[in-house]
Amino acid sequence: MSIKAFLLLRNVARYRIVNFTPIGLRTFSNRSRDEKGWGWKTPGIAALLGSVVVGSALSERLDLRQKAKPATEKEVIEAGVKRPDLPTYRAEEVSKHDTKLSFWVTYKQGVYDVTDFLPSHPGGEQILNAAGLSIEPFWNVYGMHKTEEIYKLLESYRIGNLHEDDLVDHSDEELWAREPRRDPRLSVKTARPFNAETPPKYQILHFDTPNELFYVRQHMPVPELDPETHRLSVVIKEGDGRERRTVLSMQQLQQLPRHTVRAALMCAGNRRTEMHQQVKPVKGISWTTGAISNAVWEGVYLRDLLILCGVDLDNTEGKHVILTGADIDATGVNFSTSIPLSLALEPSARILLATTMNGAPLPPDHGRPLRALVPGAAAVRSVKWLESITISDEESSSHWHRKDYRSFNASVTWETADFSKAPPVYSVPVTSAICSPQHGDTVVVKDGYINVQGYAYSGGGAKVTRVDVSGDQGNTWLEARITAADAAPPPRHYSWTLWELQLPASIQASMEIWVKATDSNCNTQPEKFNDIWNIRGILGNAYHKINIKLKR
Amino acid sequence: MSIKAFLLLRNVARYRIVNFTPIGLRTFSNRSRDEKGWGWKTPGIAALLGSVVVGSALSERLDLRQKAKPATEKEVIEAGVKRPDLPTYRAEEVSKHDTKLSFWVTYKQGVYDVTDFLPSHPGGEQILNAAGLSIEPFWNVYGMHKTEEIYKLLESYRIGNLHEDDLVDHSDEELWAREPRRDPRLSVKTARPFNAETPPKYQILHFDTPNELFYVRQHMPVPELDPETHRLSVVIKEGDGRERRTVLSMQQLQQLPRHTVRAALMCAGNRRTEMHQQVKPVKGISWTTGAISNAVWEGVYLRDLLILCGVDLDNTEGKHVILTGADIDATGVNFSTSIPLSLALEPSARILLATTMNGAPLPPDHGRPLRALVPGAAAVRSVKWLESITISDEESSSHWHRKDYRSFNASVTWETADFSKAPPVYSVPVTSAICSPQHGDTVVVKDGYINVQGYAYSGGGAKVTRVDVSGDQGNTWLEARITAADAAPPPRHYSWTLWELQLPASIQASMEIWVKATDSNCNTQPEKFNDIWNIRGILGNAYHKINIKLKR
Repeated sequence: MSIKAFLLLRNVARYRIVNFTPIGLRTFSNRSRDEKGWGWKTPGIAALLGSVVVGSALSERLDLRQKAKPATEKEVIEAGVKRPDLPTYRAEEVSKHDTKLSFWVTYKQGVYDVTDFLPSHPGGEQILNAAGLSIEPFWNVYGMHKTEEIYKLLESYRIGNLHEDDLVDHSDEELWAREPRRDPRLSVKTARPFNAETPPKYQILHFDTPNELFYVRQHMPVPELDPETHRLSVVIKEGDGRERRTVLSMQQLQQLPRHTVRAALMCAGNRRTEMHQQVKPVKGISWTTGAISNAVWEGVYLRDLLILCGVDLDNTEGKHVILTGADIDATGVNFSTSIPLSLALEPSARILLATTMNGAPLPPDHGRPLRALVPGAAAVRSVKWLESITISDEESSSHWHRKDYRSFNASVTWETADFSKAPPVYSVPVTSAICSPQHGDTVVVKDGYINVQGYAYSGGGAKVTRVDVSGDQGNTWLEARITAADAAPPPRHYSWTLWELQLPASIQASMEIWVKATDSNCNTQPEKFNDIWNIRGILGNAYHKINIKLKR
Repeated sequence: MSIKAFLLLRNVARYRIVNFTPIGLRTFSNRSRDEKGWGWKTPGIAALLGSVVVGSALSERLDLRQKAKPATEKEVIEAGVKRPDLPTYRAEEVSKHDTKLSFWVTYKQGVYDVTDFLPSHPGGEQILNAAGLSIEPFWNVYGMHKTEEIYKLLESYRIGNLHEDDLVDHSDEELWAREPRRDPRLSVKTARPFNAETPPKYQILHFDTPNELFYVRQHMPVPELDPETHRLSVVIKEGDGRERRTVLSMQQLQQLPRHTVRAALMCAGNRRTEMHQQVKPVKGISWTTGAISNAVWEGVYLRDLLILCGVDLDNTEGKHVILTGADIDATGVNFSTSIPLSLALEPSARILLATTMNGAPLPPDHGRPLRALVPGAAAVRSVKWLESITISDEESSSHWHRKDYRSFNASVTWETADFSKAPPVYSVPVTSAICSPQHGDTVVVKDGYINVQGYAYSGGGAKVTRVDVSGDQGNTWLEARITAADAAPPPRHYSWTLWELQLPASIQASMEIWVKATDSNCNTQPEKFNDIWNIRGILGNAYHKINIKLKR
């Protein structure tokens, strides 16, 4: 069995098989869903009945198309073969039709305008994930689509052929087919794995970022877990080689006292693009300033759980808590990282095993049904889809822990980097960003001022105490007004801070705006990226500087 | 009664009056001393007997001098009147004779070479405090000196007259007469109040700075407290206006569990001189890099004491812990500052009420018998000679708390500064310094390298994770080797870190060396002082940069 097939089956095995059709189709009822009806997240058994339950309007249309352009038997059975009678489209053109107003997809060499079909899709809005893209990876998983009836239906929407240069082998992509539906307002950086920023205007619009606008950072496809059956294992390795293992259901876990923590999460690579552009190239997702959002998280303290499971409070030195998620890479390895046991047990660290986000169950993109929440730390430590917790004498051995999220000085290259000696990044430094206006904007000056807004944040439980803005390259600094901040005192302050300033705008045609923040440890940001540059482009917290045009 | 007289009596009142002599002299037995014999810290009743107990060698000398230069009756009674037969000295010349090898003092207009008298001084090495200076302020307090016999003895050492332009009215200085003897290796910044740095070579010589080399920062004269009779008051102000007051002896206080914390203390103004010189003038003591030292402190947790005294753990928001010392200013006000109650109760903050320093009772300069120790915070919060602790709805109203140790941005002037809105400085930021070589040194290059050593530190419980050194103005950074660090994990890491590097030295004749540190929150230092400049010159944590000459 190929790795791909293994992974597919492993993924598939999370769902109860409810039926086998005469033609061998498997259909899966996702028991983990708590939405009602035909939500986008519930492909459900109805998909099986696609050819039966399509509405009357759709049936009419099907008839209409069949009459207009009768497909050959072979064409219908295979679908997506070249049709010389139809125009050719480039993938780029197809990709522009990605809204409910104009919704195109491809299947093999076929291009289809399925805009009118959207309301009738038995799988609901799940189909929106394929907007402007090939539906092959989805059908590779939801194989119930591969019937003559559905091929026929699809071909009835045929409008053209995909350019041969744009044909892609989608056979590896079934892993991505169950990705949750994402809010189109997110600013996508990579589609697979899905990584997307909260756009600046939404960062400053809400103190607690709405769940659907919270930035998303995935390393792998999103696993789907059933809160009813999900179990968390806690493994404590004893000195004599024995293991003490505790397995808890979600219900059991929630017997522990519940706590809420208001905390921002920020990717260690937030603002990587500035470092990349202002100094020299780095490797990683090209985050701008949007890889940070804020939320209220609820759950139980990791500390409480570890004490419940019998961790030795007097023997923490050199020990680590390995956190492992259910997301798996192409070689079948689960995502994993670790934090020091001393940090896990530190009351002020307020580390949660969270089940809710802003009062709602965790969305799939944010770890449903359970994630670690390590406030103040690089978000990579807040492991999603948490499956197991292991107390160990060593840090996690995973690639993500050992070969990433470590910091080097500006003179270390990929050739000279010794990851084994660089300490892992846990807490993140003080940073800030201007969210409005945006770099390159033309801004109208009102009564001699322009309005500037943004966020500031510091990790490790520090609170932002001052935000300074300069409109003249640091010659003059003005203190911004804090418009939203959490009341939690340092060193237990884990939220970001929003700020605003009426900045005097002189008569020149353009303006450079700088922002820097100071935190409760009196740490502040370096002016430039030069001396904090590092091969992975993480921890980029130099002043945020933008250029705008002024208009009277 | 004048303020001066009031303060003197108040100070004097700490000591038990053991005798009144026929000529009205008061003598004080300092019951707080635990040293044996005639140590420098024990003026004791023996001073009263000065004219009786002087040794035979001294008596002989007295006779000798009297024979050589017989003073008139009037001269002996008054002492220090002008002697036209003797040469005139400037105060500057006198001040150079400040060692045991050549020890001069002045009294009124008299200049005396008392080198030979030193071993016989009944008050022991206390006399060394007057090296090269006037003994008037000391005799103003230790009035037992003012006898005809001692005047005669003094005049026997007469060598000249003090220049009339250098005559000073010492009548206000009796407050300073009981200052403890300081180690001459300290680098004195101001004599009264006594402020002195640990010289760089001693900073790197010991991980825990020996008590006598620990930098000293006083706001006022050093009070002398008796551990046997000293009491600590804890006052909790209740909502209804009532106060709950607990008074504890040192013995009672030490019934609480004892803890040790290894912590550096750093004045918020450390490195002020660099900011002053590299940007523009600031006000304050001209600290260089020596206003930081490291020690192991032992005592009880403030948190434990507050809980014992019944503080409401669920009602901390907006409350403060006012810490008041026994040191008083010229208007009779005790030194006082405050910290947030939430911080005082934070287990990770590890705030001590300390009684020992590096295993010995606190020296008088460091708060004997009791001081607060707020690790990771500006040292001003670690109140010495602690007399009272008050839980209040407001911060301390003292000048030191309200009008100092607050940070402003670089554009705020003394005219525009609003101290009421600037948050107090508690935790201090990451910093570092080169201790060897020193700026301006000529360094011998060995095998193409020079040895560079120094310290790095970060407040708020953060640990220094990396120290980077550049010999080419930041074009290349080399990671220094950590030579000494404490094992305590962040956020409970409060020690400094010592480091060393073999820095390649090129063929040029001079070299600029930079150092910067990174801490466990991944915060680092700003390159320049420009944007962190502030009116008080505090929190100066830009890269430390020195210039040296190279020698082959």
